[in-house]
Amino acid sequence: MPNIEKDLEKQLREIRRGAVEIIPENELVEKLKKSIKYDKPLKIKLGLDPTAPDIHLGHTVVLQKLRQFQDFGHQVIIILGDYTGRIGDPTGKSETRKQLTEEEVLANARTYEKQIFKILDPEKTRVEFNSKWLAPLTFEDVINLSAKYTVARMLERDDFHKRFTENKPISIHEFFYPLMQGYDSVALEADVELGGTDQKFNLLMGRHLQKEYGQEPQVALMMPILEGLDGVNKMSKSLNNYIGIDEPANEMYGKAMSLPDELIVRYFELVTRVPLEEVRVIEAALKEGSVNPRDIKMRLAREIVSIYHGADEAQQAEEAFKRVFQKRELPEDIPEFKISEEVMEGEEVVLPKLLVKAGMVSSNSEARRMVKQNAVKINGETVKDPNLRFVPEQDAIIRVGKRRFVKITK
Amino acid sequence: MPNIEKDLEKQLREIRRGAVEIIPENELVEKLKKSIKYDKPLKIKLGLDPTAPDIHLGHTVVLQKLRQFQDFGHQVIIILGDYTGRIGDPTGKSETRKQLTEEEVLANARTYEKQIFKILDPEKTRVEFNSKWLAPLTFEDVINLSAKYTVARMLERDDFHKRFTENKPISIHEFFYPLMQGYDSVALEADVELGGTDQKFNLLMGRHLQKEYGQEPQVALMMPILEGLDGVNKMSKSLNNYIGIDEPANEMYGKAMSLPDELIVRYFELVTRVPLEEVRVIEAALKEGSVNPRDIKMRLAREIVSIYHGADEAQQAEEAFKRVFQKRELPEDIPEFKISEEVMEGEEVVLPKLLVKAGMVSSNSEARRMVKQNAVKINGETVKDPNLRFVPEQDAIIRVGKRRFVKITK
Repeated sequence: MPNIEKDLEKQLREIRRGAVEIIPENELVEKLKKSIKYDKPLKIKLGLDPTAPDIHLGHTVVLQKLRQFQDFGHQVIIILGDYTGRIGDPTGKSETRKQLTEEEVLANARTYEKQIFKILDPEKTRVEFNSKWLAPLTFEDVINLSAKYTVARMLERDDFHKRFTENKPISIHEFFYPLMQGYDSVALEADVELGGTDQKFNLLMGRHLQKEYGQEPQVALMMPILEGLDGVNKMSKSLNNYIGIDEPANEMYGKAMSLPDELIVRYFELVTRVPLEEVRVIEAALKEGSVNPRDIKMRLAREIVSIYHGADEAQQAEEAFKRVFQKRELPEDIPEFKISEEVMEGEEVVLPKLLVKAGMVSSNSEARRMVKQNAVKINGETVKDPNLRFVPEQDAIIRVGKRRFVKITK
Repeated sequence: MPNIEKDLEKQLREIRRGAVEIIPENELVEKLKKSIKYDKPLKIKLGLDPTAPDIHLGHTVVLQKLRQFQDFGHQVIIILGDYTGRIGDPTGKSETRKQLTEEEVLANARTYEKQIFKILDPEKTRVEFNSKWLAPLTFEDVINLSAKYTVARMLERDDFHKRFTENKPISIHEFFYPLMQGYDSVALEADVELGGTDQKFNLLMGRHLQKEYGQEPQVALMMPILEGLDGVNKMSKSLNNYIGIDEPANEMYGKAMSLPDELIVRYFELVTRVPLEEVRVIEAALKEGSVNPRDIKMRLAREIVSIYHGADEAQQAEEAFKRVFQKRELPEDIPEFKISEEVMEGEEVVLPKLLVKAGMVSSNSEARRMVKQNAVKINGETVKDPNLRFVPEQDAIIRVGKRRFVKITK
């Protein structure tokens, strides 16, 4: 039973989150109003390329957007472009568009499903192969389809335009890929299609063809292309600047921590479910320098890992990271300090005494001052109590400031 | 049983007759040699548009060429582009490419057959509808077909180039018409395709696609576009400057006689079967002015009518034309001359006496001189005997020179 979120403004606010462009926004508003009025879900379409079934964080930008639609009660339809994949590139020139067998397509589809349902609600998701409506088309149907678009407009598409003006060959069949994608919208009677900004031409093709076939045209919702971990290029497997959503929690966490600080807010907005208001607070804090970016990034990493592995594993990944990270910060050669009666009271070590005796500070008062400045850590944990007593562990690392270390031995 | 003409040079001479271009001629020679060696007919293809089944003399330029191939033992395959016709123009913008029902296509096909078999030998002619191989093509087949040609090369076609540079829309489906025509050659494994010079792009498309599909490519044989009776424009129904091959003999003859003199030789070469050597003799005679162009044109008209109505009807058409033509030259007001005893001997009129008595000449000797100069005619027939006696007919017209007429009454 549909159960559409009744608060139009709430829907709009979340739908707009991170979106680069909504064409046209007023039609989206009308569709949402109608959907609320009749409690009828909108059909939200996303096309996926079945040749590369490894989903990384870059893909989740649109998947998270789909999830928001689902949370408001709408229906998501994932199109696997198997027909395109089965045809491949008949000229054999493109390596990225290699021909797939039916078995490969099905295997890829299963891989996709396993991954996307980490984000999407399976109950509100339909997965369709576009061969279902494309394979039965006759030559006559194809002629009718291709009559609905002109050569000049097709050549306006960025990649075609570039190749055409550079006198690089464009095979006529390449014109069919956007037409097929557009026709998918006709076959589904899609209300909204999502895609990256690089998909704008294709999304608008869907609108155009729906009009030509006498349907209410879909709204095109463009999400930004997520930068990869290098902070510069589009996230992609081939550039190895990606976080795969099937990666182990520790790896995912560690990769997230390698993100340049400038992308923290963007990632919060685009690939987590942290409420927008909170993201804005984080953004302000980072701007005024009142927080350590590393701490915020740890929150980000935890949020990301939670989505794919749950909160517990995220927590464990954080702890593991801290241990490794702390280790990485240690110098190669740490002086050892053998615990003696002088620094102990009963079973416990008295921290200020230890620091003075180990030569890390010159006095008890300097020890206490350093602790108050958060400059003293035991195994990476900042010490808060200037008079701390603790049971010493073999090989525990005591650190004061940036460069003073000792390793405890018994 | 095939029975290929063994004289290669003879075949080549006739095949070259009137042809504007043969691409490439050396391949034609090879094909003919092989055909002679194995006594195997070549497949000669011609595509016809099923929307306009009225064949006029302009179309017969290629049909006569096909007939020559047949006379040498080759097989002709006429393709009726019914699939194209059935699709029509999906944009509805073109008036010339209107959608036909299957019944209309079949009716047009019958009309075509009735006409083309006035020129072609039905025994050596196969008529095919291209829907036979085009209708079963799947979307995938269409993709594969369109992968074999580039957008840039397609836009080199004259009409596309013109429209593209003038920013006039070209629908993508229009690219399929040449691809379809080319694919027809693949389906038939054609050896030679005929067409007007305006078909060059499409004929070469057939060559290209055959190569792409691993076949020996066809030879493209381009015939000139026949000028219509106005001597300027391409012969066409819409310009009403045509001779339809289904027209009655008299009309055909009369229209042929309206042809400008400059086109006489061209017509002999392109639309009659008068041997080439004879055409050259006629050409020379016209050039040096040793013949009256009108007499040559009458020969041409007779030749044309003979093809479609037989020699007897052609002869009758000529006589009818002469009568009408003569009449057309008569002045509105012809003086009458009542036959009297003075000009007769028994039942017969004596011509010199008549001419003197009627005041058309001043003396018997002038009468005889005029006859000797072929300047005297009775009902359009030139009088040869200066002393002619004849039984007078009511209303017979006697003419001397250009301007002297009398009408006989009794």
